Amino acid sequence: MVLAEDLARQQRSISVAEFFEKNKHLLGFDSPTRGIITAIKEAVDNALDACEEGEVLPDIFVSVRKVEADIIRITVEDNGPGIMPEQVPYVFGKLLYGSRFHQIRQSRGQQGIGISAAVLYGQLTTGKPAVVISRTGAKERARRFEILIRIETNEPDVLVSEEIDWDRMHGTRIEIEFKSSLAAKKRLLEYLRYTAVVNPHARIRAEIDGEAHIFERVSAEVPACPRSILPHPHGIEFGALKRMAAGNNQTLLEFLVQGFSRVGKKTAEEIAGLAGVKGTRKVKHLDAAELKRLLEAMQAVKVPAPPASACLSPIGEELLKLGLEKEFRMDFVTARTRPSSVHGGHPFIVEAAIGYGGKLPAEGTAQLLRFANRVPLLYQQGACVITGSASSVNWKSYGLTQQGLPVGPVIIMVHVASTNVPFTSESKDAIAAILEIEHEIVLVLQELGRDLKQYLARRDKKKQQDDRARAICSVIPDIAAKVSEIVEMPPLDTSPIEGRIMRKLVAKKYTENGRVQIDLNNYTGQELAFTLFALSRDTAEDVHPKPDFVDAFDGEFSRVWKIRLEPGAAFRVTYAGTGDGTLDLRGVDDAVKVVVDLDV
Amino acid sequence: MVLAEDLARQQRSISVAEFFEKNKHLLGFDSPTRGIITAIKEAVDNALDACEEGEVLPDIFVSVRKVEADIIRITVEDNGPGIMPEQVPYVFGKLLYGSRFHQIRQSRGQQGIGISAAVLYGQLTTGKPAVVISRTGAKERARRFEILIRIETNEPDVLVSEEIDWDRMHGTRIEIEFKSSLAAKKRLLEYLRYTAVVNPHARIRAEIDGEAHIFERVSAEVPACPRSILPHPHGIEFGALKRMAAGNNQTLLEFLVQGFSRVGKKTAEEIAGLAGVKGTRKVKHLDAAELKRLLEAMQAVKVPAPPASACLSPIGEELLKLGLEKEFRMDFVTARTRPSSVHGGHPFIVEAAIGYGGKLPAEGTAQLLRFANRVPLLYQQGACVITGSASSVNWKSYGLTQQGLPVGPVIIMVHVASTNVPFTSESKDAIAAILEIEHEIVLVLQELGRDLKQYLARRDKKKQQDDRARAICSVIPDIAAKVSEIVEMPPLDTSPIEGRIMRKLVAKKYTENGRVQIDLNNYTGQELAFTLFALSRDTAEDVHPKPDFVDAFDGEFSRVWKIRLEPGAAFRVTYAGTGDGTLDLRGVDDAVKVVVDLDV
Repeated sequence: MVLAEDLARQQRSISVAEFFEKNKHLLGFDSPTRGIITAIKEAVDNALDACEEGEVLPDIFVSVRKVEADIIRITVEDNGPGIMPEQVPYVFGKLLYGSRFHQIRQSRGQQGIGISAAVLYGQLTTGKPAVVISRTGAKERARRFEILIRIETNEPDVLVSEEIDWDRMHGTRIEIEFKSSLAAKKRLLEYLRYTAVVNPHARIRAEIDGEAHIFERVSAEVPACPRSILPHPHGIEFGALKRMAAGNNQTLLEFLVQGFSRVGKKTAEEIAGLAGVKGTRKVKHLDAAELKRLLEAMQAVKVPAPPASACLSPIGEELLKLGLEKEFRMDFVTARTRPSSVHGGHPFIVEAAIGYGGKLPAEGTAQLLRFANRVPLLYQQGACVITGSASSVNWKSYGLTQQGLPVGPVIIMVHVASTNVPFTSESKDAIAAILEIEHEIVLVLQELGRDLKQYLARRDKKKQQDDRARAICSVIPDIAAKVSEIVEMPPLDTSPIEGRIMRKLVAKKYTENGRVQIDLNNYTGQELAFTLFALSRDTAEDVHPKPDFVDAFDGEFSRVWKIRLEPGAAFRVTYAGTGDGTLDLRGVDDAVKVVVDLDV
Repeated sequence: MVLAEDLARQQRSISVAEFFEKNKHLLGFDSPTRGIITAIKEAVDNALDACEEGEVLPDIFVSVRKVEADIIRITVEDNGPGIMPEQVPYVFGKLLYGSRFHQIRQSRGQQGIGISAAVLYGQLTTGKPAVVISRTGAKERARRFEILIRIETNEPDVLVSEEIDWDRMHGTRIEIEFKSSLAAKKRLLEYLRYTAVVNPHARIRAEIDGEAHIFERVSAEVPACPRSILPHPHGIEFGALKRMAAGNNQTLLEFLVQGFSRVGKKTAEEIAGLAGVKGTRKVKHLDAAELKRLLEAMQAVKVPAPPASACLSPIGEELLKLGLEKEFRMDFVTARTRPSSVHGGHPFIVEAAIGYGGKLPAEGTAQLLRFANRVPLLYQQGACVITGSASSVNWKSYGLTQQGLPVGPVIIMVHVASTNVPFTSESKDAIAAILEIEHEIVLVLQELGRDLKQYLARRDKKKQQDDRARAICSVIPDIAAKVSEIVEMPPLDTSPIEGRIMRKLVAKKYTENGRVQIDLNNYTGQELAFTLFALSRDTAEDVHPKPDFVDAFDGEFSRVWKIRLEPGAAFRVTYAGTGDGTLDLRGVDDAVKVVVDLDV
């Protein structure tokens, strides 16, 4: 038997840097091509966060270029507030170091791992340090660093730290070289495009493999930086409560009111009462049993949800729609931002948009765009709660076929904003299947599904009605003529019949013996004011009545009449011609007009 | 504008414990019910690893019970070599501490996170320390510890450390309490059952919520503990090479031969030559450019794959089949262990089994059992490369319908064994989509698919043949009788015709005028020895010849004849009766026998 002593010799502490060097796929560095995207994503996330915190409109420059056969250099530069020189080595050269980890508010970066992981990956594949330039204001000179990470200790190793001239007044620039290729170019552009969609206040310039791309900002408003909030009494766990109380000199009531969000004096007293602990006791003196009762009381008492409006920054329905419309041609788009909700004490908001028809591909399953805290998620779609939730919706009841996701010309965009997005791994590719989040996504998609169903129903109904009207208008006159012939009577005017069937504004065009006739009948029961457009190659010099406007272009005439019709009234245009061309009625709702062209 | 100085004040180092406290879902502690399973899994993994290292047959005890309304205590105890007292606090009270991280060999635990994460989760939800008992041999007394983790520093906090009496001669016991419920009981048993399947040498006793379960060992052989190997020259990255070389006093040739697996003197010289670096140079003196050339040369030179047999421990085809057969009733099962392969310098082996038919559910997609390094994977099936690969196989070409996974009575079991299994997150639920691994899984499933196809084809052919034989046997005598009647001749013996068509052992039973007749004809061309079983309610006192054995139960008679038939020979049983009952021939291959019961 092997003894414990022998085994003990192999026991060792593992540095975080060692851990993530070995498990680099957890950070999104599982392949060289993907590594490039992950590195740029981390740098751009930081740039956007920094600008938001600095309250400046982001102006971000991204460059990716080949510097040797298999060496790619990425550069990301921002106009944020810069980083204090003494912090730079830690921000870029130490994993698990950052400013946003301990704050309860929405931000892109959360973990203090991302950008130093990129530095680690660069150094692992090329052995070269990352180059960082940072300047914190007009009065300061910029400082340039060359930084490596000491793997065994997870501490920065600063090779160079020098003052330099830099044309940016403030901001940060990072350069890292990787052993990689430019194979991910398309995906990278996709990432930048979607980043621009959900960050309309940002201007992003990119130079990728020599090609310039500019994503201009569409909003010049600096979004308010989400503010940090206090922990919510429903979201705290025993260990954290114990740590907060330890060495805290406050009374229980002070501790509850000042240490937690949404707890006022009354609620604090209720909690203390329920826990059976005097509100005047110092929290540092509470023993484990008392703390446990306190925790139970905190979770039992009714407290409003955390104040989401301050700490979260949803995109909003208008911008969601705009974002989709900017990128895709669709017949219909609708968006919804849900009220805020809570998972494990962390507030979150789900918002989504659905687009339909137009130029969206009619074949295959819907395209799904996933976002978390205004960052597009590009990988691991299958592992994401957004995908799972979207597939669990019964799309058939909204008029779509479905194979998991709906099938057909559909695009779905979902954004989850939270003070703590529960990603399935450090690479932040997919959101974990947390019940509350799943529920909210399903709800928002069901709401959008109902809108879509209404649109599809209206579209189908309109099409059906128009088909029927067209059939009637084309058949009735023939029947009437036949009947007249048989009974040897003059032809009957069939318009009132059509009207009674249809209750619409009917425009009917037909040509007999070289005369074109356009009949308009208002069967709606209301007065209508509208415009008749007739487009035709017929010169129609004898047209009666004269149009209000005529335009000729390339042998084609556009004639316009402004018309007002009482209920039951009619309007007739006649001219000599072939009947060529098309009709249009504008200013009347689609639902009450029918255009019948018997010449077609 | 907010200044860099203001932001700098929020910069902080984050301890690993803090990080994983906030991101506990990454470790598999996303819900209280799941937390229980994860904690037990981590403890059992450690127990099995320890026994393997200690070269003892594992005898593991697992207990899960409610100690308060919402508090569950889990206990896992093993008979491994125990842990030295000075190591215990770190193994259980510090994340990223362990013995297996730096070794290149297959083990269940890899990261030095799992069990301390369980301690962390317990303390977070209940505030209570973990209790650890360990004893390293008969001469030592056992030692009992109560351990917490200091979150801010990720260091152990030992509340109690005392000598106690313990009846185990050596081993380790851990007890942790969680705020949770017993909702995951079924899944937990599933985990234990599958763990037993892939660890046939382990005995696992479990007491779950008062119920006892025992998974006995089916093999008393201690599997050889996988041995550590040196890194492979194809799998090394620049950063790691640089670290290996720094401060190393060896010459380049010594360094290559002694530092890497599968590099002999000749290969080392080839690498040095290709890199343009003298083999006698001290590696610590090589500059970055030389190291880079060295790395390129190491990757360019042909080197055999890493020695998988020593460092990996696949389950093997026989045990895979046995494991499936033990748990499921199937008509067919086949297994395959692939030769070892390499991903990023890490050797790995994929093995798999497929079962079909029997009691497997005929509806729905195939059941998929996933294993990595002899540990069952229970969660995140959708995110796992095993699922992706199994779905990418074209099962239709093997005679199955498919919706991603194959549809029908199919079970698929896949085991990936590697010195470094690339999990998608620290919770080790799913294997990342690494190309080489994907490829091997697809290959092994295709091999099994071909076996299955052959089985299905044989089964279908057999069924078709039997159907045809039955049809002939029932029709030919009628035709013969009709013909005899018409030509006014005595009835013809049609047996030779049947024989010529079928070339099988034919058992034919028919009843005429209250006499039952069982005719056996050996048309196969070979001598056959077999047993005839006739089950019937007929008393058959006049049966001829007398059976070798008769058994009566509940009014039903079982009659057995042991028969040996020359090619072309026949055997006839007759008795007075109704013809009730069934026939069976045993000891003859399914493919050469036909039973025709004309009374049915």
